[in-house]
Amino acid sequence: MLHFENDYSEGAHPLVLQSLIDTNNLQLPGYGSDDLSAQAKQRIAEACGKPDADVFLLVGGTQTNMVVIASMLNQFEGVVAVDTGHVSMHEAGAIEASGHKVLTVPGHDGKMEANILQQYLAGFFEDANHDHMVFPGMVYISHPTEYGTLYSRAELSAISSVCHEYHLPLFIDGARLGYALACPQSDVTLTDIATYADVFYIGGTKIGALCGEAVVFPQANAPKHMLTMIKQRGALLAKGRLLGAQFAALFTDDLYWHISKNAIDTASVLRTALVKRGYRFYINSPTNQIFVILDDKKLAELSKQVIFSIWERFDTDHTIIRFATSWATKESEVQSLIKLL
Amino acid sequence: MLHFENDYSEGAHPLVLQSLIDTNNLQLPGYGSDDLSAQAKQRIAEACGKPDADVFLLVGGTQTNMVVIASMLNQFEGVVAVDTGHVSMHEAGAIEASGHKVLTVPGHDGKMEANILQQYLAGFFEDANHDHMVFPGMVYISHPTEYGTLYSRAELSAISSVCHEYHLPLFIDGARLGYALACPQSDVTLTDIATYADVFYIGGTKIGALCGEAVVFPQANAPKHMLTMIKQRGALLAKGRLLGAQFAALFTDDLYWHISKNAIDTASVLRTALVKRGYRFYINSPTNQIFVILDDKKLAELSKQVIFSIWERFDTDHTIIRFATSWATKESEVQSLIKLL
Amino acid sequence: MLHFENDYSEGAHPLVLQSLIDTNNLQLPGYGSDDLSAQAKQRIAEACGKPDADVFLLVGGTQTNMVVIASMLNQFEGVVAVDTGHVSMHEAGAIEASGHKVLTVPGHDGKMEANILQQYLAGFFEDANHDHMVFPGMVYISHPTEYGTLYSRAELSAISSVCHEYHLPLFIDGARLGYALACPQSDVTLTDIATYADVFYIGGTKIGALCGEAVVFPQANAPKHMLTMIKQRGALLAKGRLLGAQFAALFTDDLYWHISKNAIDTASVLRTALVKRGYRFYINSPTNQIFVILDDKKLAELSKQVIFSIWERFDTDHTIIRFATSWATKESEVQSLIKLL
Amino acid sequence: MLHFENDYSEGAHPLVLQSLIDTNNLQLPGYGSDDLSAQAKQRIAEACGKPDADVFLLVGGTQTNMVVIASMLNQFEGVVAVDTGHVSMHEAGAIEASGHKVLTVPGHDGKMEANILQQYLAGFFEDANHDHMVFPGMVYISHPTEYGTLYSRAELSAISSVCHEYHLPLFIDGARLGYALACPQSDVTLTDIATYADVFYIGGTKIGALCGEAVVFPQANAPKHMLTMIKQRGALLAKGRLLGAQFAALFTDDLYWHISKNAIDTASVLRTALVKRGYRFYINSPTNQIFVILDDKKLAELSKQVIFSIWERFDTDHTIIRFATSWATKESEVQSLIKLL
Repeated sequence: MLHFENDYSEGAHPLVLQSLIDTNNLQLPGYGSDDLSAQAKQRIAEACGKPDADVFLLVGGTQTNMVVIASMLNQFEGVVAVDTGHVSMHEAGAIEASGHKVLTVPGHDGKMEANILQQYLAGFFEDANHDHMVFPGMVYISHPTEYGTLYSRAELSAISSVCHEYHLPLFIDGARLGYALACPQSDVTLTDIATYADVFYIGGTKIGALCGEAVVFPQANAPKHMLTMIKQRGALLAKGRLLGAQFAALFTDDLYWHISKNAIDTASVLRTALVKRGYRFYINSPTNQIFVILDDKKLAELSKQVIFSIWERFDTDHTIIRFATSWATKESEVQSLIKLL
Repeated sequence: MLHFENDYSEGAHPLVLQSLIDTNNLQLPGYGSDDLSAQAKQRIAEACGKPDADVFLLVGGTQTNMVVIASMLNQFEGVVAVDTGHVSMHEAGAIEASGHKVLTVPGHDGKMEANILQQYLAGFFEDANHDHMVFPGMVYISHPTEYGTLYSRAELSAISSVCHEYHLPLFIDGARLGYALACPQSDVTLTDIATYADVFYIGGTKIGALCGEAVVFPQANAPKHMLTMIKQRGALLAKGRLLGAQFAALFTDDLYWHISKNAIDTASVLRTALVKRGYRFYINSPTNQIFVILDDKKLAELSKQVIFSIWERFDTDHTIIRFATSWATKESEVQSLIKLL
Repeated sequence: MLHFENDYSEGAHPLVLQSLIDTNNLQLPGYGSDDLSAQAKQRIAEACGKPDADVFLLVGGTQTNMVVIASMLNQFEGVVAVDTGHVSMHEAGAIEASGHKVLTVPGHDGKMEANILQQYLAGFFEDANHDHMVFPGMVYISHPTEYGTLYSRAELSAISSVCHEYHLPLFIDGARLGYALACPQSDVTLTDIATYADVFYIGGTKIGALCGEAVVFPQANAPKHMLTMIKQRGALLAKGRLLGAQFAALFTDDLYWHISKNAIDTASVLRTALVKRGYRFYINSPTNQIFVILDDKKLAELSKQVIFSIWERFDTDHTIIRFATSWATKESEVQSLIKLL
Repeated sequence: MLHFENDYSEGAHPLVLQSLIDTNNLQLPGYGSDDLSAQAKQRIAEACGKPDADVFLLVGGTQTNMVVIASMLNQFEGVVAVDTGHVSMHEAGAIEASGHKVLTVPGHDGKMEANILQQYLAGFFEDANHDHMVFPGMVYISHPTEYGTLYSRAELSAISSVCHEYHLPLFIDGARLGYALACPQSDVTLTDIATYADVFYIGGTKIGALCGEAVVFPQANAPKHMLTMIKQRGALLAKGRLLGAQFAALFTDDLYWHISKNAIDTASVLRTALVKRGYRFYINSPTNQIFVILDDKKLAELSKQVIFSIWERFDTDHTIIRFATSWATKESEVQSLIKLL
């Protein structure tokens, strides 16, 4: 079978695994106070162009979203996100379980628009009843979005400006951040992310690691007692080295960029082939997720040899499916898939 | 000034106040275990045609919604409501603070439609990723709705059927229930409510009481240890008599119906006058809330002598406003208002 | 039957009830923005010697403790209380339901001791693992305590000093505050309370009102958006007037003090009689709660004509019981009880 | 430096690491639905003598305690634990953040006693006010305890009987379970644990794994929608294989037992030497944690060459310290330590 169903099918990139092997016998202190974690954090901070940034290494995406959001909101506040945002839909109510509402605004191709955000915030404060409503307390966007789409630098800047006009921190979910940064169509760099966001994370789970997400507070603006809040949410690893060793490897010799680029390159080959063969796209996504509208006969046929994600029904005899490439996708696998198209 | 801004401007109906006066010197046990509360509960259960119903007397609407919803949901469940529902919008995140998501479906004139609910629920369970999402755990509707509109018996029955098909309890917020029941256009009785709902409440705050909402579990289906859950949410009055004495009065000699009817009658007089004078309505609501589109000049003029609610902006020079009548509205006040129109 | 089981058996003091009657027909805005509430808050602030204090009127004790504590704590903090504190024991987990731990220190006769608090706090910060523990975020004491005992001014001052040394706000639960202030043995005034506490409340439910607790932030130090947090916990009354009218009456012509004194005077008569007849006391409480050790035969006999509270078993044939007097206790009732002793 | 400060200083046991290496390139589905996880779960269930048990693989100890407890309690319930229990003290309020109180009973050498539990439960239900209190909803014990002590089979059976008399599930925290099972003084087997507990977990983090705790519901009694509740708490790994591969290795050829035995054997050598040299023990613990009372001069001297845990001050010139051995401790390291004693 060919695997194109997601970007977390394999284990770790060989160099990441090697880092775990090489450091396995070191006797290190617990809870992230080890040298490997320190090294990883320093390299990440420097890669962001913010050598003094606060960096925390957490385990998974939903956990990271929940911990970051709960630690930064006041009790009377919620987080603003687009309706298709991961926190709105696919985290089993993790944000609400921490006591906070996800305040949704309509998105477009998975993206938040600065003017819609502006309207929402202006409308909230103009509403005479807003003391009876959940206050917006931070803004959450994903880059790339859940639909693989990207913000331009101008769009990020505009959203960031609206946030700061209303004194709201901007949180960027970068579960697939590498795939955005490696995308040739994108004008957004990691330094831009660290400039426009008040907090963001660099995803490891989907880009070369067995697990791990690196949360960055670029202005050294982490909330007080963040470690205790991480512990309180069950998110503090006893062996923080597991995360430290992996991120140290990912941020050595630009590994994170190189392996991200593999996903983009293989996706690009696949996308070109799809276009050539006249396939219809559900959405125009330049990153490693490709959303295609298949007729159900083709879908059935393809399913015999390829695993991909069923997204949703398009019409009575068509279905939206997703092909995902990753850091681990081989050119040969893409060619095999193309032959079946 | 004429007061038409809401239905809670006055204190208590004279007979409700008299009940407090008459019972003031009785020495009664606390926490709702007193005879007045027992009497009130029994009369309410009987009025519902469910003499064995479990009845709890709480203090206010948001509190009641939060306590009922939190006590009936499992940890992994949310409550389904329309986007304009009170729990979705105007309770400052009380539901989320109890750990649960409000799952919104689009409403129409403030009402939930059975087929939209059905589609949402079917879609949820068909979604291959639904284990990563908040499960629907109960359904919340308001009768009358936040826009003063009413469900017909057939509509309630249809919603109730969908709920039961999916084994979800139906919760009816009756903060203004009397105003629905007293409405001549409505074919829904209190017995119908007690038949279609698995839990509902009969509003006192907006209908003749100083405070108080009577929660009814018609099938004696209250969750185990409901009293402790009420206490845990800070909703258990030491002097439960305050609620008992008031509801005992409201459910003596059909007082609740008689005073509800006053709101409907006075609203009807006002509505007829508005129609006659060619005012535009924002929504067609048959109960005590009347939503009118005023041009801003008229609005400014009227504001000098009448207090009403500003709902939202309609267009550049028109505003949606609300007139509300109540159990306390006098025919003379309505006539004075009509003269100003 | 004679009623000595608690201090909330009757309705409202006649002047409090009269205030409700006199203001019943006023048409007032909702949610505590009415003139009666403003008047009550102003009088309370002045009685505290803090005319600029922030005052909020809530409904009941558990609700008030939960709202105040949840609104002042950070996510990683708990509230420090003695093991017998109301928040530790008898609020059905309301504090924990808001996400916060009650951190208990051993009490003595229901009271917290400054040096034990100091040791606890010093020990916490010295503990190398304290980042893995709940941080103390505020200190809660009751005055009078749950055992009717009182802090001296020196004791309050000492606790307050420890709190401020550790930058922790001191919260005084004054559900029965009037009974402390009216006690001739006490050297603590309301001004002292407003000096030593960072937030406290003045109980109405147990002292002359049908319901109501007045929260005072003496340094105008209420958390931002307190109203929204009150709403979020279901604690915001639509008819705030119910609380405003009652507290306005209680704080007119020193009514709160006069009626509090009645409880202390009647308790004093009862206590003297108990001493004279050789009854053993479980605890030496100078306020309106008297804890007596009864042999079970006497208990059975007395139960036929008097209602009192069973506190706990003392030994195989003795039980600790509580007699409570209140603002409403009549001298004649005390004399009747004395005859039965 | 010699490392005896805890049992999580090294990475993974070589065979556990090898399992990650060997399976790294497999393309596997996410969220624990992979074959490695299935294999691990099956082997664990069989090792427990409960082939039909429900098994879930989580990441860390605090997370596991919080997820298990929150998923099994009703809203009005808390978990009963001894005062020194991990959930009571060292989880930064994770249980309370999920809305539940930890109800503490006094422990003895870190252990709960069946008769004290019985008294607590009997007392709770006899208390006339228990509806105003947090209901006990489950019982939590650790085996070994936080002090390295062990329950006998008879003690476990007695606690289990009390739990079942009150219809409360018994939860055994087995973060160090292997070290208990490998202890020659213990008569408790894994089958016993699976018989007496309603839910328990088998710790991996401290016994050979990089991370991971295996939760077992021996009667296939996992709560409905457990996966969604795990997700909701941020505890569902995208690459469940990381846990599956490790536990599959730990439960192959009795690896878990063999490596646990190493910790017990090395601790035993160290303990014998300490006894011989006349050291005082703070507590008599037969497992891999040894609590010794050191005079402060010796402590300072030893600190130059050994890392150990400072537990707490014993008296003015003595300190309680902890030496911990683990699956990774070498006999030579113990001999080096002994030379320094």
